[in-house]
Amino acid sequence: MTSTPIAELWPTLPGGADTRPEAAYRLLRAAVESFAERGFHATTTRDIATGAGMSPAALYIHYPSKAALLAEISRAGHAAALALVRAAAAGEGDPVARMRRLVEDFTAWHARARTVGRVVNYELHALPEDDYAAVAALRLDIEREVTALIEAGCADGLFEVAEVRTAARAVTSLGIDVSRWYTERSSETPEELGRHYGELVLLMLGAGR
Amino acid sequence: MTSTPIAELWPTLPGGADTRPEAAYRLLRAAVESFAERGFHATTTRDIATGAGMSPAALYIHYPSKAALLAEISRAGHAAALALVRAAAAGEGDPVARMRRLVEDFTAWHARARTVGRVVNYELHALPEDDYAAVAALRLDIEREVTALIEAGCADGLFEVAEVRTAARAVTSLGIDVSRWYTERSSETPEELGRHYGELVLLMLGAGR
Repeated sequence: MTSTPIAELWPTLPGGADTRPEAAYRLLRAAVESFAERGFHATTTRDIATGAGMSPAALYIHYPSKAALLAEISRAGHAAALALVRAAAAGEGDPVARMRRLVEDFTAWHARARTVGRVVNYELHALPEDDYAAVAALRLDIEREVTALIEAGCADGLFEVAEVRTAARAVTSLGIDVSRWYTERSSETPEELGRHYGELVLLMLGAGR
Repeated sequence: MTSTPIAELWPTLPGGADTRPEAAYRLLRAAVESFAERGFHATTTRDIATGAGMSPAALYIHYPSKAALLAEISRAGHAAALALVRAAAAGEGDPVARMRRLVEDFTAWHARARTVGRVVNYELHALPEDDYAAVAALRLDIEREVTALIEAGCADGLFEVAEVRTAARAVTSLGIDVSRWYTERSSETPEELGRHYGELVLLMLGAGR
């Protein structure tokens, strides 16, 4: 049912693929599926344990609660998105080339990892306070990277942007919303969509005018 | 808690403000709040009835189920969005002026009616099959109006768009995602955001190049 490249999310993070038991991965995957399908509040720890092929008691060995699972999914999802945004923003070329790469990667990731994307973007309100603060900080970092790259392009005379913050919001918003509407029946592959969105964003930022 | 201009949604629809009992409005409003806060699956008919200040039995006088409430909210929300898209697309001026108006109105509506917007966009999967089909038809009509307006602008040499369907998707996506992130603490009013997004979309469509 899912196309979530869940292995893509965790290996690079502290406590990732190298150390985490396989059962924890199964629980994370089952939790993503359940939260995306029914929402956090309507999902029980029993649903998640069953989805992972284990007993509720076995779940508690790895996670104290379904909120802990949501928190880990949200942190890993946001950290993965931030990592690719940072890599693109610090990459080669001028701000036009880096923004193109950023939008291509951010868009394609939200198309590929759309099930994770739905959970991390639409179940935020269910996070415990501390976890919400941690995720909000990651979101702010994404916004700041995009804003700084737009400002760099404006400083170099490559972009022409009236409201930098609004433009930065529009750039991240376009990518995030892909996780809502993209399906395996969509006519463009994640990479094609990324390329088209890259073009649209550069136009939006006044590149090449 | 809500800023939903719920009265804005129903009066113009068949069976709207003129004929619907006030109790039905209270139920719709309570259902919007509960679905937006906890999701459809975790909301009970008792939650909705309590939110509307009535008994579960009283709820059933007006609606046979919580799914019926979701269906009515989804249809009314999509119909309201389609109505403003149609009004802008059929309005005065050239395709540039009409697209500007369309994005301004569509964006501002999703900022103002964000609670309704969340329910109608993120709880679609919970709709009964027939209701889903009805709403999908309304969504397709919105997409078609935007696509036709982009094509009209291209035909007049006012827009320059490589992938019309992708551009149409980006236009609606930007507006819809506003209901996810906009809050009463956002720095722009719904109307200011609409104006800024109108400018960004026209750039994206190559207007004035």
